[in-house]
Amino acid sequence: MTTDMLIRADHPTAEPAFGDLYAQVQQFYSHQMQLFDAHDAERWAATFTEDAVFDVPTLDEPVRGRADLAANVLRNKAQQEHGGRQLRHWIGMLDVRSRRDDELRTRCYALVYVTERGGSSKLLRVCVMEDVLVRARGTWLTRHRVVTRDDLA
Amino acid sequence: MTTDMLIRADHPTAEPAFGDLYAQVQQFYSHQMQLFDAHDAERWAATFTEDAVFDVPTLDEPVRGRADLAANVLRNKAQQEHGGRQLRHWIGMLDVRSRRDDELRTRCYALVYVTERGGSSKLLRVCVMEDVLVRARGTWLTRHRVVTRDDLA
Amino acid sequence: MTTDMLIRADHPTAEPAFGDLYAQVQQFYSHQMQLFDAHDAERWAATFTEDAVFDVPTLDEPVRGRADLAANVLRNKAQQEHGGRQLRHWIGMLDVRSRRDDELRTRCYALVYVTERGGSSKLLRVCVMEDVLVRARGTWLTRHRVVTRDDLA
Repeated sequence: MTTDMLIRADHPTAEPAFGDLYAQVQQFYSHQMQLFDAHDAERWAATFTEDAVFDVPTLDEPVRGRADLAANVLRNKAQQEHGGRQLRHWIGMLDVRSRRDDELRTRCYALVYVTERGGSSKLLRVCVMEDVLVRARGTWLTRHRVVTRDDLA
Repeated sequence: MTTDMLIRADHPTAEPAFGDLYAQVQQFYSHQMQLFDAHDAERWAATFTEDAVFDVPTLDEPVRGRADLAANVLRNKAQQEHGGRQLRHWIGMLDVRSRRDDELRTRCYALVYVTERGGSSKLLRVCVMEDVLVRARGTWLTRHRVVTRDDLA
Repeated sequence: MTTDMLIRADHPTAEPAFGDLYAQVQQFYSHQMQLFDAHDAERWAATFTEDAVFDVPTLDEPVRGRADLAANVLRNKAQQEHGGRQLRHWIGMLDVRSRRDDELRTRCYALVYVTERGGSSKLLRVCVMEDVLVRARGTWLTRHRVVTRDDLA
C-alpha cells in the first residue's frame, strides 16, 4: 500500500480534522524532500502542480512547470555526484497559516545539510519556505513556493 | 481563517484524539518560535499565560509575565539587528509526557541556529526544553518553561 | 497518566486514522531517542521487540535482542561521560512508507549532535534510518532498524 493510497483511504470525502491535516502535510514534505535528495526527478516534480512556480534564491529566475523542475533536479544530481556530496533538506517548525477549501498556506523553516563522502557533515544553509498547497486526487501538491535564505536576507 | 480559529473549530468541546493533540502542540511551537525569531514581541508574549515563568540559562533569573517576556524579545531584537544576525529556534523530538484535563507536560529538544548576513550559518546551541502548557480559549499557552543547555550541563 | 496509556486510551481497538498513526510514530521516536540520549538502557531496549535487529554502521555487526541493545547503551554511556560529551539524536522527515495490519515501514533522516561540556555544539553525523515497527499492547516497537551514514555511503 503506498503512502498516497493510505492518506486517500483515510479521508474519502470530508474535510480532515486538524491532526489528520497536519500529519498529511508533514508526510507530504518528508516524501517530497526525500525524493529531492535522492535526485528522483520525475517523482519529485510530480509533487508539484503542472503550473507550479518554484522561486528560490539560488536560481536566477523562478522555475515554472514540472518539466523544468525535473530538469533542475538532474542538474543538481550531476553536480553533487561529481563533487561526491550528499545534500539533505530538512523541514521543520511547520506553521499551517491558513486553510480554505482545498488550499493551504504554510510557512516553515528549511535547513540544508551537506556531507562529503568520507568526510564530515555540516550545515549549509538556513532558509524560510512559504508554500501554497492544493489538494488533488486525495494528496497535496505544491502550487507555489518561495524560499528565502537567511544569509542573503 | 487564522490558525487559532482553525484549531478551535475542529475541537469545540470534547477532549481531542492523540493525533489532534500532538498536531496542535507542534503547530503551537512552530507558531511560537516563528514569532520569537521575527521579534514579534507582543504576539510572542501572548502565547504565554499572564503569569508565565520562563527559565532559561542565558538570563540571570526567570522572566515572569507577558510584559517582561515582551521586553526581553525587544532587547534580543536590538542586539541581533545591530550584529546583523538572524537566529532560528528549532523544536524537535517532542515528547508529550503527560496529559491531564487542560494541562500538558512536554519535553523536547531545542536547537538554535545563527546566520550572519552575507556569511555562513552555524549551530549555536543544543538545549532541552520542558514546558507546562494549559488550554485557554481553544488554543494552548505556555505557563512554565525551563530550558537547559547541553554545554552548561 | 503515562504517554503509553494516553496513546492506548485513544485507540482501544480500531485502526487509527492517519493523523493518530503519524503522531504515535513521532511520539514513539521522540521518546525512544530521549531515552537513548539519557543512557536509560533498559527502558530504551524495551522500545524494541525481544528479537529486534539493530544494524548501524558504527558497529561491526548487527545487535540482536534487548540484552545486547541495553549493553550497547551502557558502553556509550561510559564513553560519553568519560569524554564529557552529550549526544542528541534527532529524527525528522518521517516518511511512513507502508502500513499493513500491525506493521509499519518508515524511512526518515537522523542527525546526531554533540556538545562538549563547557564547549561548543556541532553536527556529528547525518544518517538515514529505515525501521520496521510493530504494534504491541497499544504502542509501537522497533523490530528491525537499518541506519546508513551519508559520510560512508
